[in-house]
Amino acid sequence: MQRVKVEKKILVANEEYAAKNRDALAELKIPCLNVISSPGSGKTTLLARTIRELKGKIRIGVIEGDLQTDIDAQRIMATGAPAIQINTEGACHLTAIQVSQAMEKLPINELDLVFIENVGNLVCPSAFDLGETAKVAVLSVPEGDDKPSKYPTIFARAKALLINKIDLLSGVDFNMDKARADVLKLNKDIKIFPVSAKTGEGMDRWLNWLGDLTKK
Amino acid sequence: MQRVKVEKKILVANEEYAAKNRDALAELKIPCLNVISSPGSGKTTLLARTIRELKGKIRIGVIEGDLQTDIDAQRIMATGAPAIQINTEGACHLTAIQVSQAMEKLPINELDLVFIENVGNLVCPSAFDLGETAKVAVLSVPEGDDKPSKYPTIFARAKALLINKIDLLSGVDFNMDKARADVLKLNKDIKIFPVSAKTGEGMDRWLNWLGDLTKK
Repeated sequence: MQRVKVEKKILVANEEYAAKNRDALAELKIPCLNVISSPGSGKTTLLARTIRELKGKIRIGVIEGDLQTDIDAQRIMATGAPAIQINTEGACHLTAIQVSQAMEKLPINELDLVFIENVGNLVCPSAFDLGETAKVAVLSVPEGDDKPSKYPTIFARAKALLINKIDLLSGVDFNMDKARADVLKLNKDIKIFPVSAKTGEGMDRWLNWLGDLTKK
Repeated sequence: MQRVKVEKKILVANEEYAAKNRDALAELKIPCLNVISSPGSGKTTLLARTIRELKGKIRIGVIEGDLQTDIDAQRIMATGAPAIQINTEGACHLTAIQVSQAMEKLPINELDLVFIENVGNLVCPSAFDLGETAKVAVLSVPEGDDKPSKYPTIFARAKALLINKIDLLSGVDFNMDKARADVLKLNKDIKIFPVSAKTGEGMDRWLNWLGDLTKK
């Protein structure tokens, strides 16, 4: 019981910072997307391509969460976009206070959209509100079409799902209809975008969705 | 501080059960491998192929950990091997007490080797000793060669690493030499097996390693 109480306290503290982040973003009218997936689903490649495709149209900043290294922030900065790296030093998800601190370092007044790339983990990050406008899940086809039913929480909570690496579809057993149906069973309003961040296939619908989201 | 104390208590309780599991397995001279990876790296396919290839030579039982569903246990049982499914109901890793309960349900006296397939998560499961003989990490090539440096803990602690889905190498950017070098920097004694659980390529060395492990 003690553990439950302590965890509740931590979640309450997190929610306070999440509310602050949400208020600050709402005041500036900047949507913020909390991107959640397994390690290696292609989140960073997807964000880098998204930034490049929207250059001159939507100004994007990125908060990068990783256990170690600043590899991902470097990859984002190579696109010309600002990126702030958070190293969790072993922790399995980002917290709202970390995001609050990173937001202060971003040139937030010059942005139209903020992405948070969470730690690669399909389980823990979905329990922590960061103050985002919406959660976005990424599932890559080599991970398998059974993941929505096996890891339902994030698929139930996300506003959008990118099914990435569709360039690999012919080499893996992934039934797109089954994946879609399983996700829609959990979350009938979710937007699903099958894409390849590598080849660019399917990116248009995703970019249009981001365009609608950032219309002020 | 309170959280740290409570977590320590939970880890101590876990370690007590882990020690019990380890003693029980040592008495029976049954090695037990705790298999850890991201979701979708191919753990279940790998175990199913391993069981089929070793049929008549090494008798294998499997403890399956998942948030939800018994999909994985069903896939293992289809090979003819006994499998016990644990549903963590949202928790991001298995605990030693869960494994202890599952071991009681396995026909342990008739086995030569036990696999624990942990919840798909490259972060949290590596912190929890289950009483296993060794941890085995699985990394699939579509996840990327930067994962060992970004998620070092499991690669530092595992006795063996399977680099799976090498049948997809030509379609993805994965530098096997870099991955090897990064893993060996973290853990110079780790055994590395590049394999395709789908085509069977590279499985021989892994199966031989299991053969040596189970020699009584």
